[in-house]
Amino acid sequence: MPETTLLDKVSTPADLRKLDQQQLRQFADELRTETINTVSETGGHLGAGLGVIELTVALHYLFETPDDKIIWDVGHQVYPHKILTGRRDRIRTLRQGGGLSGFTKRAESEFDPFGAAHASTSISAALGFSVARDLCKRDNKVIAVIGDGAMTGGMAFEAMNNAGAMENKLIVILNDNDMSIAPPVGALSAYLSRLISSKQYRSLRDVGLHLTENFPRTLKKSAQRAETFARGLLTGGTLFEELGLFYVGPVDGHNLNHLIPVLRNVRDDTADGPVLIHVVTRKGKGYAPAEKSDDAYHGVGKFEVSTGALAKGGSNLPSYTSVFANSLINEAKRDERIVAITAAMPSGTGIDKFEQEFPERTFDVGLAEQHAVTFAAGLAADGMKPFCAIYSTFLQRAFDQIVHDVAIQGLPVRFALDRAGFVGADGQTHCGAFDIAYMGCLPGMVLMAASDEAELVHMVATAAAIDDRPSAFRFPRGSGVGVQLPDQPELLEIGKGRLIKEGNHIALLSYGSRLQDCMRAASMLDAKGLSTTVADARFAKPLDEELVLRLAKEHPILITVEEGSIGGFSSQVMSTLALNGVFDAGLAFRPIFMPDRFLDQDTPANQVKSAELDADSIVATALSATGNQTDIKLVV
Amino acid sequence: MPETTLLDKVSTPADLRKLDQQQLRQFADELRTETINTVSETGGHLGAGLGVIELTVALHYLFETPDDKIIWDVGHQVYPHKILTGRRDRIRTLRQGGGLSGFTKRAESEFDPFGAAHASTSISAALGFSVARDLCKRDNKVIAVIGDGAMTGGMAFEAMNNAGAMENKLIVILNDNDMSIAPPVGALSAYLSRLISSKQYRSLRDVGLHLTENFPRTLKKSAQRAETFARGLLTGGTLFEELGLFYVGPVDGHNLNHLIPVLRNVRDDTADGPVLIHVVTRKGKGYAPAEKSDDAYHGVGKFEVSTGALAKGGSNLPSYTSVFANSLINEAKRDERIVAITAAMPSGTGIDKFEQEFPERTFDVGLAEQHAVTFAAGLAADGMKPFCAIYSTFLQRAFDQIVHDVAIQGLPVRFALDRAGFVGADGQTHCGAFDIAYMGCLPGMVLMAASDEAELVHMVATAAAIDDRPSAFRFPRGSGVGVQLPDQPELLEIGKGRLIKEGNHIALLSYGSRLQDCMRAASMLDAKGLSTTVADARFAKPLDEELVLRLAKEHPILITVEEGSIGGFSSQVMSTLALNGVFDAGLAFRPIFMPDRFLDQDTPANQVKSAELDADSIVATALSATGNQTDIKLVV
Repeated sequence: MPETTLLDKVSTPADLRKLDQQQLRQFADELRTETINTVSETGGHLGAGLGVIELTVALHYLFETPDDKIIWDVGHQVYPHKILTGRRDRIRTLRQGGGLSGFTKRAESEFDPFGAAHASTSISAALGFSVARDLCKRDNKVIAVIGDGAMTGGMAFEAMNNAGAMENKLIVILNDNDMSIAPPVGALSAYLSRLISSKQYRSLRDVGLHLTENFPRTLKKSAQRAETFARGLLTGGTLFEELGLFYVGPVDGHNLNHLIPVLRNVRDDTADGPVLIHVVTRKGKGYAPAEKSDDAYHGVGKFEVSTGALAKGGSNLPSYTSVFANSLINEAKRDERIVAITAAMPSGTGIDKFEQEFPERTFDVGLAEQHAVTFAAGLAADGMKPFCAIYSTFLQRAFDQIVHDVAIQGLPVRFALDRAGFVGADGQTHCGAFDIAYMGCLPGMVLMAASDEAELVHMVATAAAIDDRPSAFRFPRGSGVGVQLPDQPELLEIGKGRLIKEGNHIALLSYGSRLQDCMRAASMLDAKGLSTTVADARFAKPLDEELVLRLAKEHPILITVEEGSIGGFSSQVMSTLALNGVFDAGLAFRPIFMPDRFLDQDTPANQVKSAELDADSIVATALSATGNQTDIKLVV
Repeated sequence: MPETTLLDKVSTPADLRKLDQQQLRQFADELRTETINTVSETGGHLGAGLGVIELTVALHYLFETPDDKIIWDVGHQVYPHKILTGRRDRIRTLRQGGGLSGFTKRAESEFDPFGAAHASTSISAALGFSVARDLCKRDNKVIAVIGDGAMTGGMAFEAMNNAGAMENKLIVILNDNDMSIAPPVGALSAYLSRLISSKQYRSLRDVGLHLTENFPRTLKKSAQRAETFARGLLTGGTLFEELGLFYVGPVDGHNLNHLIPVLRNVRDDTADGPVLIHVVTRKGKGYAPAEKSDDAYHGVGKFEVSTGALAKGGSNLPSYTSVFANSLINEAKRDERIVAITAAMPSGTGIDKFEQEFPERTFDVGLAEQHAVTFAAGLAADGMKPFCAIYSTFLQRAFDQIVHDVAIQGLPVRFALDRAGFVGADGQTHCGAFDIAYMGCLPGMVLMAASDEAELVHMVATAAAIDDRPSAFRFPRGSGVGVQLPDQPELLEIGKGRLIKEGNHIALLSYGSRLQDCMRAASMLDAKGLSTTVADARFAKPLDEELVLRLAKEHPILITVEEGSIGGFSSQVMSTLALNGVFDAGLAFRPIFMPDRFLDQDTPANQVKSAELDADSIVATALSATGNQTDIKLVV
């Protein structure tokens, strides 16, 4: 292990503030080393953290955290922040069950005043802290750190529009690394590039000398000449100034001799209102394999530090994401009306593969799920067949657009919901728990869930064919289960499930990813003499009512199983049973869904077990349901 | 009735295009008169339509609608558009059952290519149409018309960020009337005012002469002098130009001699990419009572044209909105940590009243629900007690913020969900159908529904007291039911319902606004000899499990009633019943919720009846449930 003599002396920001400013360069280098070594052992988000090493050091050095509030947007860049704020001893538990979260988290530390993991929330939250401070007549500082990608999310704009018209003091640091997850898209990115190229860093060394006491905003109120001088050095970001934020920058985010004086000036500035500091950084800075990478080091597995070589992944099976991408490409070859939309996640959703085949029919709209969905609705309204590929958790951002622009108009937008269900190391903020509930309540939606990768192939084809209403199909994170992929996709009959295995005591009705555990549970139950039927509902909406009623009629016990929250598939099934009077004469019905709590990061298998959605738990539920069924005899 | 000699000859835009340009002024005046007369009879949105009379005429005169696509943002300004596009004969059925929608609606006319009623969607949709056109190699024009209020919604920014980086031709008309529903807030509004005041209309008469053929963008590529000339006249909106939209304006939106040449130039422009035309209009233009009004003529009832006098409303009972506002004011007098947040709806939500008492504790964040919720979360995280007052339908915009920023962090943000359930004339886009489902699936949420105005008073106080987790209370649009308001609010026991009336055959468990119809239904059932219990659940989450299990135990028939979609309250109740094995031995359970379709505008009473949520329908459901209950004898 490399030496970290300074870092070893610093376990909190208070320790850091005892160092001389001249020592910060070495400290930052050690913090970078520690970050690289940590992620090489734990996996996780590497590039983002390396890009803000100096910023992290400078902020904690200059501001009185935790009284001063640093709100990191997205929160995946905070490993160095965690190392610095009393969590170094647990840093190698990152993203593991019982360990540290991979994001900011209020429950974890007083240095995390606001948790995040989805993008673009920091300015809104920081404005809340800023207003609360002023109402309570406190004088702490509030700083939002937001990337250029997150800045394209609409709510960041909403927050600037609000903050820019208020008098509350607020510091927004635009961490411009020209890279959110994928290479940047959109007009804002182009604008920021123009801003940077039109300025030069040359004068920034002077900044520290010239502006030690006189912050530009103060100068603005004094002599015109002085203002011209100061603003010529540092300002000129008119887009932000038009929104009422005083713009300072661009500043080299890896040069502490530039960062420190600028941040100190802004800190000590007494004028009202929000300031935006445009800091230019490089994702992966200081670690060659990460600097060279376009995207792969955004989130990584374990790797060897000296070479950057990634450890082999566990599975040789194709990922659901790649099965989806290949299926969509095949459909698009047959139908030129098919287009694909991603919201700044081309590789995560597999849309990068689609783009290689059909660049003209691929649209990365930026970190903007709301726009993505209504843009897709517009495409559908004019006769195209849009596939909107967005993770289950991120599609929450576009719920109103799904209701108002897609469902009410009955437009055939296809939603490909990747990462549905538990997602493992990314934890509660990324869990795809709610899509069955929030889509299932909408009239006219077709909802499917793939129980294996072959089913996913069929569902992509089926969604392509559904051209008179919206549809969605969900599939889990990770690898398929290993079934043979079909040569030709099959068009599924809408609203029809399938029987996998027939028995007569207990019926397990699975929706999506829990089918394999239902099969395992059925084997265990069969072995106990409880003859078990397993069915794959395929559709939550329209529900296969015939199948549901038949299962209820032919079995004293019916259990639904889904990797989603209350109000989802089980709600559709119970409503059908109740409205058909099936409960009147008695049915031991048990819905198995996620528990009513947010689950922390862990392996997906542990999460499934902890949520009691695994085969053992299904068996336990089935056995407890037999308690009231006097006609069922157990073989023990 | 005033004469409308030109208008009488025009039933479609094709007719309009046969008029001489000189006749358009008179035509516009007639269209304005017809609009005023219509709304005086039907009620509805008046000011917005009057502000775009000339724009409506100019667009349909110059563009080949319906092949060219005009996409109106929000859609409440389209009464003149409807009169012009073949719907004049039905215009006096506006907002009535079986009549025309008060918004754009695809199902209604080919001249409505994309429906709307929520704000800020038009640029996204228009970009979709523009891309579809180019992929299909068509050459129709696509025009989005968006107000300055809607422009503050984040998704408009997301759409501009995307459009500004693309080559697809697209026309965005910024209809700057400095007034969305309430007076404008935010930095963008201030910026637009500066833009307007820094230019003058003086040169715009010349525009028609100088720019008949030469649109500035074309000039840009030719001589520098010419460009300077042209851009000096018309351009300079740097915020939009930085986002990649070519800015033209400001243009007087009521002067057809200015509007027509500018729009014609933009239409005939052959350069790629998006253009933004900044049109300045006045809401209510040409009708003095509307021009003078701040807000009241945004949506109006029937009125007398000559005086502007509004017809008396039907009810002398206090509205739920005002009961909420007064309750919140009372709570805020007792607790200075209470603050109120509205997203550009101060009067609709009653927050205008709160602001009169507590201007420093009131925050109108603009048309920005996403920011509103996370801003509230930030306030809560720093110790304040925020009440976020947003209509049920508009809160859909902030679903991810509710999940990610509020629920996961367990922050005590209070959501006041006005307009929950059916809303009458505003129809399907404004129906508060889904909040019980989309909030009910979230761990840790406290969900309440007020069954009358006294209950609402208690729930405001209860929400103020819940300081360890998020909470929400829903209440319907319109007037209370006439119960006495309490002198002092009562703190409700969390997760406890109340028995209203006890019987032993049938139990009606109501959640929220359907309680009165449950009481009526109970009387009818009692009269038939079916002794009926009525309970008010008060809480959907945490559910009063004890009450639910007791009702199930003591009655052979249990019916839940709610003014919401599938997946809501009924789902919570059924899950509890199933997980407790109550269905095993038989229970005639019937969930009554909204049907699985979007209901058109009508009176709220008709909507309730059509949805089969009224007393008669509850009775019918109860009677049908007795069919399988051999121990219940009907008195006929």
